[in-house]
Amino acid sequence: MTNKEKALEMHKQWNGKLSVEAKCPVASAEDLAIAYTPGVAEPCRAIAENPKEAYTYTIKSNTVAVVSDGSAVLGLGNIGALAAMPVMEGKAALFKDFGGVNAFPICLDTQDTEEIIETVVRIAPAFGGINLEDIAAPRCFEIEERLDQMLDIPVFHDDQHGTAIVVLAGIINALKVVNKQKEDCKVVVNGAGSAGIAIAKMLLAYGFHDLTLCDRQGILCSGDPSLNWMQEKMTQVTNLSHKTGTLADAMKGADIFVGVSAPGIINQDMVRSMAKDSILFTMANPDPEILPHLAKEAGAKVVGTGRSDFPNQVNNVLVFPGIFKGALEGHATHITSEMKLAAAHAIAGLVPQEELSDNNILPHAFDPQIADVVSAAVKEYID
Amino acid sequence: MTNKEKALEMHKQWNGKLSVEAKCPVASAEDLAIAYTPGVAEPCRAIAENPKEAYTYTIKSNTVAVVSDGSAVLGLGNIGALAAMPVMEGKAALFKDFGGVNAFPICLDTQDTEEIIETVVRIAPAFGGINLEDIAAPRCFEIEERLDQMLDIPVFHDDQHGTAIVVLAGIINALKVVNKQKEDCKVVVNGAGSAGIAIAKMLLAYGFHDLTLCDRQGILCSGDPSLNWMQEKMTQVTNLSHKTGTLADAMKGADIFVGVSAPGIINQDMVRSMAKDSILFTMANPDPEILPHLAKEAGAKVVGTGRSDFPNQVNNVLVFPGIFKGALEGHATHITSEMKLAAAHAIAGLVPQEELSDNNILPHAFDPQIADVVSAAVKEYID
Repeated sequence: MTNKEKALEMHKQWNGKLSVEAKCPVASAEDLAIAYTPGVAEPCRAIAENPKEAYTYTIKSNTVAVVSDGSAVLGLGNIGALAAMPVMEGKAALFKDFGGVNAFPICLDTQDTEEIIETVVRIAPAFGGINLEDIAAPRCFEIEERLDQMLDIPVFHDDQHGTAIVVLAGIINALKVVNKQKEDCKVVVNGAGSAGIAIAKMLLAYGFHDLTLCDRQGILCSGDPSLNWMQEKMTQVTNLSHKTGTLADAMKGADIFVGVSAPGIINQDMVRSMAKDSILFTMANPDPEILPHLAKEAGAKVVGTGRSDFPNQVNNVLVFPGIFKGALEGHATHITSEMKLAAAHAIAGLVPQEELSDNNILPHAFDPQIADVVSAAVKEYID
Repeated sequence: MTNKEKALEMHKQWNGKLSVEAKCPVASAEDLAIAYTPGVAEPCRAIAENPKEAYTYTIKSNTVAVVSDGSAVLGLGNIGALAAMPVMEGKAALFKDFGGVNAFPICLDTQDTEEIIETVVRIAPAFGGINLEDIAAPRCFEIEERLDQMLDIPVFHDDQHGTAIVVLAGIINALKVVNKQKEDCKVVVNGAGSAGIAIAKMLLAYGFHDLTLCDRQGILCSGDPSLNWMQEKMTQVTNLSHKTGTLADAMKGADIFVGVSAPGIINQDMVRSMAKDSILFTMANPDPEILPHLAKEAGAKVVGTGRSDFPNQVNNVLVFPGIFKGALEGHATHITSEMKLAAAHAIAGLVPQEELSDNNILPHAFDPQIADVVSAAVKEYID
């Protein structure tokens, strides 16, 4: 059986990957009198009097909505809400198993920005946080920003910030391996969608100065009518020397390349044109922008990918369970830049100095302490 | 500790009564490659090609949304979405433990009919059914009717139909105990809200002819400006002799009284005025319209209440887990009148003829076979 056949077969056998279970006994009239009517009226009254008591008496304390419109599903594109369900169920399974957080898939039968926003606002009471997932750019930016303003629970677009946080964690450690300082580094990010833009913002927030953002048309330049509003906005803070040209032009002399673009679009000459001891995060799906051994052959020092079968897997699962665990436990109302930076430092710190090497810059996805460490770091920055 | 204190204490300890669990292993890279990326793409593709495959590969196969706007919460009234959460979580717990059905609370931060309808339509993809709960009348009628037309999954307002089905089940058996025929019976239903109106409709559908519906103002009469649109509509099919008067007037000579109204509003004289061997279902919360021993003293033969500490508990939990179990297993798109009648007959049939008595007309709520029996009966009527 191929892996594809096995995946289909297993999904059929599971018949849905999630189960909603009662934490309380409901096996006798006495149980029901406490968990349901008439006893349940007491916590209801307590919450009606003080809405914050919802964190004491309900699943709001530990439950996240995994919200998607199915418009940008990993490797599949715009397949819609229903077909996106297996991904959202898998994400919810990871939330529980990696972070102890309840998550439930909310797949929306609309791809209209206003409708998505108003729907999420209306279903928010049951949830302690909103994890946006696989929503196309640039719609995703506006949806996240406005929901974050409207709601008093954290809103986090994992494709953006989960990716950006783990990339930064990897870069923090990679810089130690190559012994370079962020202030001296030239960075190129290729792929100006949700992940690429969030990575660029995060790296700038961390303190990189020289960052060039590329997409299909090459280096993003202000005034290009093909840019969306967020890409245009990003031209104000990236490519400060106002270069024009292709991705190959951008990569000349660069210290760091981060790709969230397409398999195989980088060749060895492009890697050779980079600065000495270059760092590459090639995270295209299902295959990287260049295979790690080819990149290394061409002079790269540290190479990370999205894949578990190569060293240095850059995996969001290092991030989102711990971020939400911390945010929920701390009753955070927003996930701030400080919390995101703290998460990146916490993840980087999980690789002991003496174990750092070009093939070991990130903790393993199944390291059982990650969510607790990230959660603790995040909680430090909740008011 | 009083029961109220115990309920608060236990809810605090549970910190939410539901847990979302992964049914699939996600403890290794191999697991993730099947349950998440890249394997998950296969069921996604299969569903994108044929939406019906969602029943094969996702939780849509066995998951219900428990939707409320918190506008008519049992005994508490309009406490809003957040404060209604403990009730909806309890309901979800019952769905799983009594029917094996996943249920998740969707508490809506709106009480506008149009907004409720459009929100439920948008979140429907993840769910195999919609259980509406504690939504005020007459809004609940329009919401259910329109959602049922718009969606291709079953929509069921449990406060209406769950109650109506279990009342009919009880009446079917009570008639055997008193040896009367439905065609000869005079029925009074007091309380013209969601439950009372659904009960009246169900009893008419079953074959009762002489049914009078009352509310605070007494017998409902066409043209009364205080009636809502649904109550006005009900005057066309009830009270066919066009009587006017109070509840006491309506009850004179009645064979069956069904109360979903207020504690203590019936006195012994009113019971005495009923026909011989009268049947009373007095389901007001938290105390019945008249206490069973008082009703019996005044001549009633069969008395049911909503309480577990009296005989003949009329409890929705006999209904909704099995109804949805059957509807989900049969991929029903609607819950029809035939399915509801079948459920009532199945519940009535669970009390063996030889065990039927004035104090034993309904199965016990914790009889473990109920959901299976109801489910099987319901499935017979799915096309």
